[in-house]
Amino acid sequence: MAKRIVVALGGNAIETNTGTAESQEESIKRTMRSLIEFVKNKDELVITHGNGPQVGNLLLQEAAGSTKKNPPMPLDTVGAMSQGEIGYWMELALDSVLAENGIDKTVAAIVSQTVVSKDDPAFLKPTKPIGPFYSQEECEELKKEHPDFVYIEDAGRGFRRVVPSPKPIRMLQVGVVLAMIEKGMIPIASGGGGVPVVSDGKGGYVGVEGVIDKDFGAAQMAEDVDADELIILTAVDNVCVNFNKPDQKALTNVTVEELEKYMAEGQFAAGSMLPKVQAAIKFVNAKPQCHAVITSLDKVADLVAGVPGVGTVISK
Amino acid sequence: MAKRIVVALGGNAIETNTGTAESQEESIKRTMRSLIEFVKNKDELVITHGNGPQVGNLLLQEAAGSTKKNPPMPLDTVGAMSQGEIGYWMELALDSVLAENGIDKTVAAIVSQTVVSKDDPAFLKPTKPIGPFYSQEECEELKKEHPDFVYIEDAGRGFRRVVPSPKPIRMLQVGVVLAMIEKGMIPIASGGGGVPVVSDGKGGYVGVEGVIDKDFGAAQMAEDVDADELIILTAVDNVCVNFNKPDQKALTNVTVEELEKYMAEGQFAAGSMLPKVQAAIKFVNAKPQCHAVITSLDKVADLVAGVPGVGTVISK
Repeated sequence: MAKRIVVALGGNAIETNTGTAESQEESIKRTMRSLIEFVKNKDELVITHGNGPQVGNLLLQEAAGSTKKNPPMPLDTVGAMSQGEIGYWMELALDSVLAENGIDKTVAAIVSQTVVSKDDPAFLKPTKPIGPFYSQEECEELKKEHPDFVYIEDAGRGFRRVVPSPKPIRMLQVGVVLAMIEKGMIPIASGGGGVPVVSDGKGGYVGVEGVIDKDFGAAQMAEDVDADELIILTAVDNVCVNFNKPDQKALTNVTVEELEKYMAEGQFAAGSMLPKVQAAIKFVNAKPQCHAVITSLDKVADLVAGVPGVGTVISK
Repeated sequence: MAKRIVVALGGNAIETNTGTAESQEESIKRTMRSLIEFVKNKDELVITHGNGPQVGNLLLQEAAGSTKKNPPMPLDTVGAMSQGEIGYWMELALDSVLAENGIDKTVAAIVSQTVVSKDDPAFLKPTKPIGPFYSQEECEELKKEHPDFVYIEDAGRGFRRVVPSPKPIRMLQVGVVLAMIEKGMIPIASGGGGVPVVSDGKGGYVGVEGVIDKDFGAAQMAEDVDADELIILTAVDNVCVNFNKPDQKALTNVTVEELEKYMAEGQFAAGSMLPKVQAAIKFVNAKPQCHAVITSLDKVADLVAGVPGVGTVISK
């Protein structure tokens, strides 16, 4: 049965060792050859993706290559640039894979903003490291220019800027995503969780220097477009308990209550499986009749075919 | 009377002396305060824009700041990055100006590709200079890495890469622009003329290293969305003949035939007014019952109000 599905792609769906455009485009094409199964099944597909490595690379290039006359861009703008970059690669790759399968559909990436709250407690405690490592001296120099920036020491590797990771409230361009779904098109949106913006108090928005977790962004998008399913695709086939231990156990069907028990036990790594599990819970709590799935790109064909026991299916 | 209008914004609508994100965002907000007149008039608005300075800055930063592990991006990808960057700034600015005017509309920038022909004669003769200046030695070193790149000497300032400027054939994501118009939304699309792509012969497309003239891209978009009017906004109120001479004359109403006569006389500067005039002619030839207008941002309010003699109106 056809469903409305929001897919969240992680680093492994895009990233490569070399970091060249060519290799990332190839990597994304392989990803699209998995996602095409949803399209062939006539599911309504919305694609979201991470942007961590691309933003990181761009910040490093800007730090090393900018000048007084050619200043570096702030984090919100760099996030939007990475949406253009990855969105373009995804358009090319999906157009090509659609053509391989004789399917004619318009694909487009939307430059996406996600509203967050000024009062999000994350703004009081920046945690997400971004950009280059600095010596203590460099760090003190940088703080003169931007007294509001926060740097933390990263075990022996130097100082690194940390930014807040606020929770998404609403994707601003969701109307376009819905209009595209209605016309049978495939939107790519909420890249990197969307560029975080806060209300300017006058009906508009201003960008903030922060990073929205891309899985939380995907869960928000899935709520906003009233999706039937949120599918988080990552490097492993299943969420596991006792991960990498002799008694490791892959979860197949699991309830929110069970997952919360495992979370309390500290079963899931922060910055890795934990945000995926939390995002899945967020979606299922918002839409209790729906499921979220966490699995790997390799399992998409089986998942679409309805093979039993594929991936970790999270239900209320 | 409300019309479907494609507006082409030039460098002066975005660019600033400092090049910071903040100053460019301010500049774009002023631009949007002009464009809001179309929205208040209930015109259907499609916004296109140039990206030359932004792409130039990014290429310079990448040339200076990239490393073996963090390679520079090719021109097509950099073009897409600039669409994300400028598109985001335009979304923020227009949302804010819409709110100032009590208008609720969804605004979104679409990552846009424009199809060009492999056989475009422009590929045989690259003319558009991009990126940094190099010494002859640097230039020879660079040619070892990319034997296909073409460099020309720029009067005393060193060597600079030149890329082709092929003619647009079709904007690939036009379906999204049409869907947005239908829903009363405001699309920002075809930034920098769109990223140029050519057919891969298998139904998909591949990016090419080139630059589409943004006014030609806007004219193509105006054809593709069946616009009533193409409005090219630039730094001057009118197209002039004998520009900057004692007998300078501003053109108000002009036919394609008259413009072609002036072009033959060499009245319009290449890379400046000439492509705007050519783009206007292209649109009017494609839609002989419609007009194109070339004027300044300052004249938009008068233009919308129907004040006679505003701007240069080009008719078949």
